[in-house]
Amino acid sequence: MANIIQPLKHFTKFESITQGQKLIEQALIYKENPNLDKAKGAGKRIGCIFLNPSLRTRVSTQLAALNLGMDPIVLNMDKEGWALEMRDGAVMNLGTVEHIKDAAAVLGSYFDILAIRAFPSLTNKEEDRSDFIFSQFVKYSGIPVVSLESATRHPLQSLADQITIQENWSGKSKPKVVLTWGPHIKAIPHAVANSFSEWTLGMDHDLTITHPAGYELDEEFTRGATIEYDQSKALEDADFVYVKNWSAFNEYGKILSTDSSWMLTESHFQKASTAKVMHCLPVRRNLELSDEILDGSRSLVQQQAKNRIFAAQAVISDLLEQL
Amino acid sequence: MANIIQPLKHFTKFESITQGQKLIEQALIYKENPNLDKAKGAGKRIGCIFLNPSLRTRVSTQLAALNLGMDPIVLNMDKEGWALEMRDGAVMNLGTVEHIKDAAAVLGSYFDILAIRAFPSLTNKEEDRSDFIFSQFVKYSGIPVVSLESATRHPLQSLADQITIQENWSGKSKPKVVLTWGPHIKAIPHAVANSFSEWTLGMDHDLTITHPAGYELDEEFTRGATIEYDQSKALEDADFVYVKNWSAFNEYGKILSTDSSWMLTESHFQKASTAKVMHCLPVRRNLELSDEILDGSRSLVQQQAKNRIFAAQAVISDLLEQL
Amino acid sequence: MANIIQPLKHFTKFESITQGQKLIEQALIYKENPNLDKAKGAGKRIGCIFLNPSLRTRVSTQLAALNLGMDPIVLNMDKEGWALEMRDGAVMNLGTVEHIKDAAAVLGSYFDILAIRAFPSLTNKEEDRSDFIFSQFVKYSGIPVVSLESATRHPLQSLADQITIQENWSGKSKPKVVLTWGPHIKAIPHAVANSFSEWTLGMDHDLTITHPAGYELDEEFTRGATIEYDQSKALEDADFVYVKNWSAFNEYGKILSTDSSWMLTESHFQKASTAKVMHCLPVRRNLELSDEILDGSRSLVQQQAKNRIFAAQAVISDLLEQL
Repeated sequence: MANIIQPLKHFTKFESITQGQKLIEQALIYKENPNLDKAKGAGKRIGCIFLNPSLRTRVSTQLAALNLGMDPIVLNMDKEGWALEMRDGAVMNLGTVEHIKDAAAVLGSYFDILAIRAFPSLTNKEEDRSDFIFSQFVKYSGIPVVSLESATRHPLQSLADQITIQENWSGKSKPKVVLTWGPHIKAIPHAVANSFSEWTLGMDHDLTITHPAGYELDEEFTRGATIEYDQSKALEDADFVYVKNWSAFNEYGKILSTDSSWMLTESHFQKASTAKVMHCLPVRRNLELSDEILDGSRSLVQQQAKNRIFAAQAVISDLLEQL
Repeated sequence: MANIIQPLKHFTKFESITQGQKLIEQALIYKENPNLDKAKGAGKRIGCIFLNPSLRTRVSTQLAALNLGMDPIVLNMDKEGWALEMRDGAVMNLGTVEHIKDAAAVLGSYFDILAIRAFPSLTNKEEDRSDFIFSQFVKYSGIPVVSLESATRHPLQSLADQITIQENWSGKSKPKVVLTWGPHIKAIPHAVANSFSEWTLGMDHDLTITHPAGYELDEEFTRGATIEYDQSKALEDADFVYVKNWSAFNEYGKILSTDSSWMLTESHFQKASTAKVMHCLPVRRNLELSDEILDGSRSLVQQQAKNRIFAAQAVISDLLEQL
Repeated sequence: MANIIQPLKHFTKFESITQGQKLIEQALIYKENPNLDKAKGAGKRIGCIFLNPSLRTRVSTQLAALNLGMDPIVLNMDKEGWALEMRDGAVMNLGTVEHIKDAAAVLGSYFDILAIRAFPSLTNKEEDRSDFIFSQFVKYSGIPVVSLESATRHPLQSLADQITIQENWSGKSKPKVVLTWGPHIKAIPHAVANSFSEWTLGMDHDLTITHPAGYELDEEFTRGATIEYDQSKALEDADFVYVKNWSAFNEYGKILSTDSSWMLTESHFQKASTAKVMHCLPVRRNLELSDEILDGSRSLVQQQAKNRIFAAQAVISDLLEQL
């Protein structure tokens, strides 16, 4: 059935369970044999545009591109002082040096694929929700665009997470997946939590989301999940527990709680003895998640990080089909 | 006749009409077939040294080198905290960490070709005019040097501009080319304007330069052009209109005008209905140039940007001949 | 005999004279023929992690990796805002975003070899001496690690220095090597001086170290050298004079002298007429070392810099043996 799925035009979000399963399977094939399609991308270039810093995402995307024989070129626009104008019709007599529509069009004419990271402001809810920066790149570049985390989603992370769940689940029934809020000292975007929810539900797993009151996520991403405010109840019989901080969505970008009792330790797993723990990294140890969990046998965090390479490779490989 | 032109030693300025025509023709060949000379630069390395930030220039040079099979290595010396000492005989007991003569010699021993961006200070006219930093790299590196914009010239941009003019001109007589000053809020270098004038005159086109009084460019670059202070008169019957801001040259580095009537809109083209508009990018929209021009059919700016790749490829390919 | 030496597990310090000689010989082979082992590293990736800035080290390591057919990926973690937590058990509720043990493990799973630069604080002597940051990368990455300069050593520089000495010594007896302190205005790490002493003694050369009182280096590195506080006496009959500033080791990180009479000029060589002068670069001219020496025939500094490529290539080639 995989052969009748249309190749991706862009990779910005969850599309369908068949598409998701196809990407997971392709990623696992590449994990076994990273150089399988070394010739597929020869002579093709992917531009990796970072409006925000990155380590794992940047390196895993570069490696994925190299595995496919492509030339990856990284542009740290945040660090390289290239402030983009976002407003249509703006009179650019202040700090911005280039309009996103011009920059996107040039980059679109230089590369075969663009991969872009653009975090939310966390101050303008509607602009963030519209994924404005990201959609401008899609609109003006004219070439396939891969999200390296947008204002609202982090689909490559979520694909890597689903690969990891599949690798660690041999049960016949659906796994019980729990997404739990963890404490943090900074206002953190919703993208990882949104995307994890979207993909976990989309892949037809059973999802429970737990967080302090006020931390409800955008329902666009969580519809179909069980919301349970009592963390200990949510964790009962969990197979996979995904830990992530996010700032409030309703009181947009606010920090409402730093309650350390939400940080998982072994004692939280009394009714979920075999549960595995996931986190997208970077993790603030002993704030978001305890040393004992991260250094113990429940942790899948390194496996998730490794799978980022093959998630990106499967996605880029799929995008290459249309070129 | 092209086959008797000597290969370039360095690429820092306009050399001759035959050399210019040879590079344009080679660039157009590469535009048709970017991988034509994929083996030519195999195993060769180009070091791209940025003392000032860059997006288009950096990426287009990297792509040009990759098209020729070379390994490009980028050094953002401005961002990476490597302050170079420029003064001969200096006692280096202040902020500079390495003398340009040592750095240039090392880079010259590491690479096969160096490409360098070094903006002017706009405060020391004679030092800027002598292209001091640039000439030190030429002197001490001992290898071919490509200008990625020096204090006084931006020849790769100008080559891309001439390629674009050739692509858009099928007339039998010389095209009428107009270089018009446009407003800006910052003090901008003269390099693009100087080089455009030098190349346009060198390629034997008809050039009119128009700007507010006081914005006269260095005559070294403009000798042979018509200087016309009335912009509307200058634009009459224009075939190509190149828009660029620059700061004053006589009152060196000063901003003398931000008169917004100099910004081109459709109403400026009543007597030049078929004129094409050019700009090197990045452009500050609605300050230097209006949305209606940039988004309309007169605009060649994206074509110019794309041609940067093939301009660089033609130049690097020529420099490889001597290695 | 070379064929019975075990391949390196990591490259962080001097190991043995046979290992040293093997690396020198291999480097000289690569200098003659850089592309000899172009296929050896194909498909392998080296991650070059800079916690501190670098020019020569970064480029020479990239070139060495390219010569071996590897893909080098550079991460300027200092500039890219990725503050690592170093303390075990820390509650990460301040500025650090990722624990070194997590970052090192991820990088270890992404690359085949890691190369790391991590300077000392010069404020915490015991932590610096333990090469803490460096040892954490060795411990948690699980892959071969190359030092690009640690808190205490700079072994790739020292290997390049020994290659340079061998290239310039045809005498039958041991050369007399002098390591002389030179003035500087900043507090400089001990790594280059430590390593040069360690390697010069390890390669069984005759070593005299001269410096103002109070600048004694850590005896761990200098045991076996002659310490001579009178610079002119130390220089007598020298064959090679290595110039380097370092801050005090006993009064840790302090600047005790900036006495300019310690800066070498031609007049210092009256009793060492054929002596060659070495420096690792970057050098502050006319502060650490005079123009007349650097620009004269005694200077080997450019040769040392060039040999950095082949030192790195020999080391990485050796590390590839175990993969």
